[in-house]
Amino acid sequence: MKGRVLSGMQPSGRLHIGNLLGALQNWVELQERYECYYCIVDWHALTTGYANPEVIGEYSKDLLLNYLAAGIDPDKCTVFLQSKVYQHAELHLLLGMITPLSRLERVPTYKEKQTELKEKDLNTYGFLGYPLLQTADILLYRAGYVPVGVDQEPHIEITREIARRFHHLYEVDVFVEPETLLTKFPKVVGTDGRKMSKSYENAIYLSDSPDVVEKKIKTMMTDPARERRRDPGTPELSPVYHLHKIFSSEQELAHVANGCRTAEIGCIDCKKILVKNVLHVLDPIWKRREELNHNPSYLADVIEEGNKKASVTAEETMSLVRGAMKFQ
Amino acid sequence: MKGRVLSGMQPSGRLHIGNLLGALQNWVELQERYECYYCIVDWHALTTGYANPEVIGEYSKDLLLNYLAAGIDPDKCTVFLQSKVYQHAELHLLLGMITPLSRLERVPTYKEKQTELKEKDLNTYGFLGYPLLQTADILLYRAGYVPVGVDQEPHIEITREIARRFHHLYEVDVFVEPETLLTKFPKVVGTDGRKMSKSYENAIYLSDSPDVVEKKIKTMMTDPARERRRDPGTPELSPVYHLHKIFSSEQELAHVANGCRTAEIGCIDCKKILVKNVLHVLDPIWKRREELNHNPSYLADVIEEGNKKASVTAEETMSLVRGAMKFQ
Repeated sequence: MKGRVLSGMQPSGRLHIGNLLGALQNWVELQERYECYYCIVDWHALTTGYANPEVIGEYSKDLLLNYLAAGIDPDKCTVFLQSKVYQHAELHLLLGMITPLSRLERVPTYKEKQTELKEKDLNTYGFLGYPLLQTADILLYRAGYVPVGVDQEPHIEITREIARRFHHLYEVDVFVEPETLLTKFPKVVGTDGRKMSKSYENAIYLSDSPDVVEKKIKTMMTDPARERRRDPGTPELSPVYHLHKIFSSEQELAHVANGCRTAEIGCIDCKKILVKNVLHVLDPIWKRREELNHNPSYLADVIEEGNKKASVTAEETMSLVRGAMKFQ
Repeated sequence: MKGRVLSGMQPSGRLHIGNLLGALQNWVELQERYECYYCIVDWHALTTGYANPEVIGEYSKDLLLNYLAAGIDPDKCTVFLQSKVYQHAELHLLLGMITPLSRLERVPTYKEKQTELKEKDLNTYGFLGYPLLQTADILLYRAGYVPVGVDQEPHIEITREIARRFHHLYEVDVFVEPETLLTKFPKVVGTDGRKMSKSYENAIYLSDSPDVVEKKIKTMMTDPARERRRDPGTPELSPVYHLHKIFSSEQELAHVANGCRTAEIGCIDCKKILVKNVLHVLDPIWKRREELNHNPSYLADVIEEGNKKASVTAEETMSLVRGAMKFQ
């Protein structure tokens, strides 16, 4: 039997090429080797976005579109919407009973994110419970593997701890303690050289049109020391070069690096090559987005079918959980 | 249209005559004038009883038995089990997103109960969320009235605040801000003169047999100054007299008070009168308990029917809530 994978994304904004390279492309590979559950975690989006929930529905639709456009195949895995599988709320409630407050306060992202998003009031019960809701998401599917980046490791650790605590308290063995599938994905920089992120306004979105992508790349920051066309530059100091490393062939990479150091090519030419290569990756995704956009009933079917499949697995687990707590 | 009432009890122990006089008899009256929802809040019992959930199911059955034996009429009101109406968990999750942590920490019973039950580890996420779960219970049924004692007033206040916050944030008006139905019920003392409570082991239970009730009353504390039969006593110093005030007629009350002061009757005679009167109140309840105990399928039908009715109302509310948050 294949191992089971669970992962999800928050519909809290549009997806950018950092998300594509960092997660989605990895998910597409995983669906060949694992039994994958890919969730749109819309309740999670409320933990930071409770003041403007009206956007979450739109972003959820966009996320589904992007999942499928990037190559997630609903015949191979289960794509579903968290808020349509009520067992997430039930397990979150039950696990909350056995989870020490201090343990949640100690999750590193708790304080970090409050500082990062200090314009929002995140001193809420729901925001503190974020890792608990994520724990419920994972344990509900008895997933053995969760693909995450290094920064998410503490969330998987708390999941394992809560599973063990449940097993110990009720003398049962109903959950699977998940392992992380650490994925080595490239750190994608944004147009200003910082990490690509929607909060920095430096992102290239999957929903951007080719024109917009071209414009964003053409106005990207480059090596500031290279003031004139004839000045030699240092490619490593330019975010354009970082994207080349991801999107361009080895040959092209050598060409632009060398051309920059010797001033043989200018930044405009260098960016043209990058535009071509980024568009080459995004083009099939756009085409598929376009097709899917014209087929809303297919999208509705996919998510409805996924919700049903997820609910069956979730109910199996909850039946064990309720049994363990003698709540039948 | 009748106003709607919601109330509930935790299946965290057997019911005693304090619960009967303080709540159940009041509920029986309310069902004539209001549309009443009476809940067995079994998920709540986990907030303090998560380490031993195996007793909750048994206590839930006993609570249903006592509700009905005391006169709650399922044809007049809705009797249901919280854990069978998943919308409680969903609303709890959603309201948690908008509830400030500091507001929950400020609920007076939070610290009080932690001190009172210091043998238990109540530093849990679920225990802090107790008033939030109660808020969800009340708002889910858009109940206008909640019968409570004075000590529960702060929980109704936080319910009103969270309802207002929801209305303000999402510019809607879906919940009813509940009013308290303050009930003047007698403070029932236990066999040792302290407040009757299962934690003090001074309670007379509805499930006690007549023998046990008689024995408990016969060994009750009396005025300690009245050492011998011929010593005159002060009725107000005896917990037996306090129970007489609740259970005995005015004539009998005058008789025992006077007899105590003049030493005309002894404590044994005084207690005999009390036993007779307590048994008189409990007798029909026991008879009904006995009948119900022989009719498990009726009990199962009552709770199943109640769960269904409650679910319909709960789903109506959740549909409004999801709509307000654009989560349809």
